[in-house]
Amino acid sequence: MAHYLGVDIGGTNIKTGIVASDAVVVASSASGWSGGQPAEAVELVARLAAALIRAHPSEEPTACGVGSAGLVDGRTGTVIASPNLPTWHDVKLADLIATSTNLPTLVDNDANAAAYAEYHIGAARGAASALMLTLGTGVGGGMVFGGRLYRGAHGFAGEVGHATIEAGGPVCACGNDGCLERFVNAGAIVERAREALTSGRPSSMAAAAAEGALTAQVVGEAANAGDAVALDVVTETGRLLGVGLANFAFILDPDVVVLGGGVSAIGQALLAPAREELERRTASYGLRLPRLVFAELGHDAGVVGAALLARDELPGR
Amino acid sequence: MAHYLGVDIGGTNIKTGIVASDAVVVASSASGWSGGQPAEAVELVARLAAALIRAHPSEEPTACGVGSAGLVDGRTGTVIASPNLPTWHDVKLADLIATSTNLPTLVDNDANAAAYAEYHIGAARGAASALMLTLGTGVGGGMVFGGRLYRGAHGFAGEVGHATIEAGGPVCACGNDGCLERFVNAGAIVERAREALTSGRPSSMAAAAAEGALTAQVVGEAANAGDAVALDVVTETGRLLGVGLANFAFILDPDVVVLGGGVSAIGQALLAPAREELERRTASYGLRLPRLVFAELGHDAGVVGAALLARDELPGR
Repeated sequence: MAHYLGVDIGGTNIKTGIVASDAVVVASSASGWSGGQPAEAVELVARLAAALIRAHPSEEPTACGVGSAGLVDGRTGTVIASPNLPTWHDVKLADLIATSTNLPTLVDNDANAAAYAEYHIGAARGAASALMLTLGTGVGGGMVFGGRLYRGAHGFAGEVGHATIEAGGPVCACGNDGCLERFVNAGAIVERAREALTSGRPSSMAAAAAEGALTAQVVGEAANAGDAVALDVVTETGRLLGVGLANFAFILDPDVVVLGGGVSAIGQALLAPAREELERRTASYGLRLPRLVFAELGHDAGVVGAALLARDELPGR
Repeated sequence: MAHYLGVDIGGTNIKTGIVASDAVVVASSASGWSGGQPAEAVELVARLAAALIRAHPSEEPTACGVGSAGLVDGRTGTVIASPNLPTWHDVKLADLIATSTNLPTLVDNDANAAAYAEYHIGAARGAASALMLTLGTGVGGGMVFGGRLYRGAHGFAGEVGHATIEAGGPVCACGNDGCLERFVNAGAIVERAREALTSGRPSSMAAAAAEGALTAQVVGEAANAGDAVALDVVTETGRLLGVGLANFAFILDPDVVVLGGGVSAIGQALLAPAREELERRTASYGLRLPRLVFAELGHDAGVVGAALLARDELPGR
């Protein structure tokens, strides 16, 4: 069986894995890093990969797939820019990693890689089409139609977090007003919780807030423990997520929407109001709606999806 | 050369045409109708088609493609519902027309048919992918990726007019708040012009408004003649269209966006502010943008696109 090197490059971690052509992860490794220069990342990938390959000589990879944070042109393997990798601009990452690993290499956006994995072996397997949303510090997306990653005309399709849901609304980190990301990312949840706490309603979140330790995870856990203030915050976040989901249903009509990323761990408390808003906004149309499911592959999705993209898309693999 | 019957069913007109496999319209005919029961439409189509076929015996069509107003499941040829055909619900139109014309028949949404025509022989020919927007009483859409119509999982992809651009904004005919259609359709332009006229600024539109004859066309013509009030109205409409265009660039990353429908006849006065807003909302991303072009095929697009869909998608044609 052929094997592939899967790589996931984020703002704080780099992960590598040897993935068999049946998508089983033979071995994996990860290293924290500081989101520095591209050359550092390339060297770290080469080092992690070499150690994996030495330890598994009979599973030597024949090609490499990389999922990277940021705006990536998957057709050329170029990272155009990345909020989490601020020094990266027009980095020809596929070429750099191909040289350092001596493997044919493709690079795509990390959310695209995760979407590809969830479609082929995760929560969206068997679907006609899937849109994956990664809900975390940012809101990313990836689309798989009929088994193939949909990249769009310039490699940027699926940057769904920066679609506008409220023109004239609050300003996003990207400079636009009213981006979906601005309403549903981890920071928005914390901001909404801080504001809710100013009402003086009693909440289990007050201590964490006083210590400056309020996070989306804290809010989610409080909501799931029945904290009424946290539940209101999560419900409002879910409702706004549902506005985005309705847009995707109207525009893309996907078979399945997969929700992944740290914020999705809040679970049904987030999903139920999102589904309600999706239904409300599409009811008068009789639109048939996508199934909404949670991601199944967790932190491995990026590594596995990147490896499977290398398996399926690099010529001669 | 094979020939195909193309049919375009709208709320006020039904058009038919015999279209050669090279997309040339051999002959066409149209009839006004009152948007009544499906059986009336089917009978009218059969009558128009029979007359065309009698007059062109050597170009007898071998299959029929229909573009219909409304929400259409193109996979089954069913019109689910249509604002312009209010009595139509779950109409199995493909079956009905196949029986009445004795031709293998497919039915899809009229904007999908128009998009297919513009992609193959119109403003988007040669593109990798295209999104067509039909701007009129409603705002419809259709997508062609790599030469094939993209229908989505349930046949509803491209209902872009009802994607939300301003949650909490004004209520649309569909019941949602802040739909793109609500901001940029013909009615929104008239409404915006009426409001602008209340300021008392002098405008060539005042006479039409006083006579209750203010239409989007009147506003567009006034803008193109240099009327400052009309220009403000069209500029604001274009800006809001640009919010939608940015959403489509982020989500779909199409190669080309084709603007058609009556409102698009306003031309550059509408397109320039739309392009400016698209650029503004994507600037910080370095996104490469779709080309924005006007439709080329005019009123024939629906008939031609439906015929070409029959050519390309009905088995054995």
